[in-house]
Amino acid sequence: MSSHFLHDLLNPKSIAFYGANNSYEKMGSMLFMRIITSGFEGNIYPIHLELDNVLGLKAYRKIADVPEVPDLVVLVIPSKVILQIFKECAEEGVKYLVIVSGGFREIVGERKNTLTEEIVEIADEYGIRFIGPNCLGVYNGWLDPDGQKSFNMMINDQIKRGKFSLVSHSGTVSSQLFRDPENTDLKLGKTLSIGNEANIDLVDFLEYFKDDNETEVIGLYIEEIKRAKKFIELAKEITPKKPIIAMYGGGSGAGNRAVRSHTGSMAGNTKLFDAMISETGIIQTHYVEEFLDIISILSKPNVVYPKGNRLGILTTFGGPGALIANNADRKGLAVPELSESLQQKFKKFLPPTANCSNPVDVTFDTNVLNFYIKYPKMLMKSGEIDAIIIIGVAGFFYDIQRFQQHEISNHIDFREDFAEQLNNLEKILITPTIKNSQQFSIPVIYINTQSFASTWSNKVREEGGIVFKFWDRPVKALAKICKYAEYRRTHS
Amino acid sequence: MSSHFLHDLLNPKSIAFYGANNSYEKMGSMLFMRIITSGFEGNIYPIHLELDNVLGLKAYRKIADVPEVPDLVVLVIPSKVILQIFKECAEEGVKYLVIVSGGFREIVGERKNTLTEEIVEIADEYGIRFIGPNCLGVYNGWLDPDGQKSFNMMINDQIKRGKFSLVSHSGTVSSQLFRDPENTDLKLGKTLSIGNEANIDLVDFLEYFKDDNETEVIGLYIEEIKRAKKFIELAKEITPKKPIIAMYGGGSGAGNRAVRSHTGSMAGNTKLFDAMISETGIIQTHYVEEFLDIISILSKPNVVYPKGNRLGILTTFGGPGALIANNADRKGLAVPELSESLQQKFKKFLPPTANCSNPVDVTFDTNVLNFYIKYPKMLMKSGEIDAIIIIGVAGFFYDIQRFQQHEISNHIDFREDFAEQLNNLEKILITPTIKNSQQFSIPVIYINTQSFASTWSNKVREEGGIVFKFWDRPVKALAKICKYAEYRRTHS
Repeated sequence: MSSHFLHDLLNPKSIAFYGANNSYEKMGSMLFMRIITSGFEGNIYPIHLELDNVLGLKAYRKIADVPEVPDLVVLVIPSKVILQIFKECAEEGVKYLVIVSGGFREIVGERKNTLTEEIVEIADEYGIRFIGPNCLGVYNGWLDPDGQKSFNMMINDQIKRGKFSLVSHSGTVSSQLFRDPENTDLKLGKTLSIGNEANIDLVDFLEYFKDDNETEVIGLYIEEIKRAKKFIELAKEITPKKPIIAMYGGGSGAGNRAVRSHTGSMAGNTKLFDAMISETGIIQTHYVEEFLDIISILSKPNVVYPKGNRLGILTTFGGPGALIANNADRKGLAVPELSESLQQKFKKFLPPTANCSNPVDVTFDTNVLNFYIKYPKMLMKSGEIDAIIIIGVAGFFYDIQRFQQHEISNHIDFREDFAEQLNNLEKILITPTIKNSQQFSIPVIYINTQSFASTWSNKVREEGGIVFKFWDRPVKALAKICKYAEYRRTHS
Repeated sequence: MSSHFLHDLLNPKSIAFYGANNSYEKMGSMLFMRIITSGFEGNIYPIHLELDNVLGLKAYRKIADVPEVPDLVVLVIPSKVILQIFKECAEEGVKYLVIVSGGFREIVGERKNTLTEEIVEIADEYGIRFIGPNCLGVYNGWLDPDGQKSFNMMINDQIKRGKFSLVSHSGTVSSQLFRDPENTDLKLGKTLSIGNEANIDLVDFLEYFKDDNETEVIGLYIEEIKRAKKFIELAKEITPKKPIIAMYGGGSGAGNRAVRSHTGSMAGNTKLFDAMISETGIIQTHYVEEFLDIISILSKPNVVYPKGNRLGILTTFGGPGALIANNADRKGLAVPELSESLQQKFKKFLPPTANCSNPVDVTFDTNVLNFYIKYPKMLMKSGEIDAIIIIGVAGFFYDIQRFQQHEISNHIDFREDFAEQLNNLEKILITPTIKNSQQFSIPVIYINTQSFASTWSNKVREEGGIVFKFWDRPVKALAKICKYAEYRRTHS
């Protein structure tokens, strides 16, 4: 159990909430409803000047009326009353707050402003720590050991719990990346929108996550780094053990304008940021899909880090094989021609139309056992490659089920064990190769052109496999992972 | 109705098929089953040396036994018997063939080989035209005027019919991009896998599509261009009227190795290809997702071409606003700061925390009518921008339905017309703006972080809107579309 103060902030047993009423259209109500419906079982005290009940819970006029000092107070109220309320909370002994309210420095346009300064002063005086202002709140999936309950102010869908934690200067990035089932592989642990960072900043979170055993992969969306030296120092300590993936919001003129108005940050140019980041081992990206792809791969429970950047491509599809090879080349991966002796080994099994040089294009060879198990293992044992992309046809077997619903099926000779085989296809084809992947420390990525939700893609994922629908994104993600893996090897 | 010979080839009334039997595991059977189950209603004659019936249809021993000269013959047989069968078909008067069989030049490794030459010679002698060898076949969704029937050898899922046509050196690219519902927006018309192009090549298809009124958008996957001069000439004639989007499979050493083995093409380096393509107005990409994104946008029935490259960003999300602005800058789009007078107009409506400079970040302003209709129109009328990306929260209203299933709903004051409003939300918020978009000729792209299949994304699409889940891909696609739109303006 972490002894960091952020652990306490994220695991409150009682919460007071300012700014909810009984209307679903109000921001405060939305966050409040989320807390209640996500299974938080501690005491919740809505505070409201007029209402006696808020969304079914007894409401209090002020913090002094609440029957206990709540572990956490959430403020979703206009900035003009913030100072007074904050003082009242301080005087009652509240130690942790989340200030969702905006209207601080991001509106004045100054890095310091009076309101922020006054609140920070009170916080210092009373030993208070607070997240925000100008944020969306927090989600902690680790509220109970079983993962049935969470402290959730903002995540929309029920997402599986895992060890990926996210800290973000953007409420959207902290809360809106997890709405699509495609992103549930991430298995989220904690996500935090930290706004203007008047009191708690990125560095605090790095300190916390460094030794937090509920966090194995760290994601950051950054608009500004306040304590750069400390940030770099901590990042360097963390990245040899836990990957950090970062997106940066500054850069272009318009981007900097946006950032300034968003969190009041003074975003610099990307080159300066890149230079600062590059020595830390942080994986950097500009693209949210790449951000998610990398996190999704590195969040796998039995993640395998490649030992080099040589990619082996095993395919039944000639065109995509060529496109993957070109893309790998552009992104800095090698696609080495296989040795003559290894090519000869492949030639023993493959039809004359096949290509054995890498990409290994088996064309219409329908021996799926070879394709999914033997050939990957031959590549792994060879020592000639460090990662494998497999793009094949096993998913197509499920198409045949479609024909079974058609009149034509009366005339097809179905093997007696067809249905049974189909049921166990992933155990037959995927499980052995995933084991080999771990044994040889060579990551394997599958591509299935069927949808993410297709039977085959689901089955591969259930076995712990990594699956993409198309071939562009895994190559880009893999290139960055290889670079990070090298950093990790040389810095641990 | 097109008078091009490819129109006849793609609209056969009778088909003879070599290489199917009653096993679902055989390539030939798979293609044959697809034809039968896709509603082809002409005569189908399987030809088999031993079987009397193939998948429920009377089989014939040889082409001479078939009771009519079929409009099209499909061959999925070993290359060693190709020559004899091809001769027999020629002698019976067959005019069109699709040769799926591989084992021609892609195995010998020569650009010319004897088997190919001999078949081409017979074809020339008898006036035969054929697709292939070494291809996957064809799909024509325009077999009947109602779009209920198709001639389909290879597309797996029922896809809506439209005016996007695809020609590909890769069977995968021609058949496997359309399995996921996310790609059904494409509304496919025709797709063809053309393999080694021994007789019919890319140029033939450009000739056909140029005047084909069933084709408005053309996609190409290219490993080699045989008649480069003619190709460029035709492309230049087509692109001012119909967009052509091309992916190229050559480039890197490994890519070229793959291409050589795949279709036997001698792929060159990308720079040469780029130089050749750049003067044609063809939109080029290396990435299949970008390929599909661009096609999906340009295939909209009422596609709107931007008149410049100035992007307006309208957002409730600060972080994504900044990321979009940076990405636009990287991809060559401008994100101009709005004029002082326009900013003043926005300030009248927006909260003080909002940013009016562009991105226009309305923060927590919940006036969705303004956000979805008034603000886009203000941007359109200003003449200061050429395209708009809208990233907003309307989809969230459907989340509220989730709360209605929870005990908490007893305490929420739902507006009486909530359900009704929700039902018509797209008519209220989207339809007017799509009309304005067409009137001002300013394309609008929506981003909804909910899944592609979510209620809101579906509703926006049904109104003719363009929706993406995240913000990276639409920016990249839009940058290329702006460039093409400029070419189109200056070349028509």
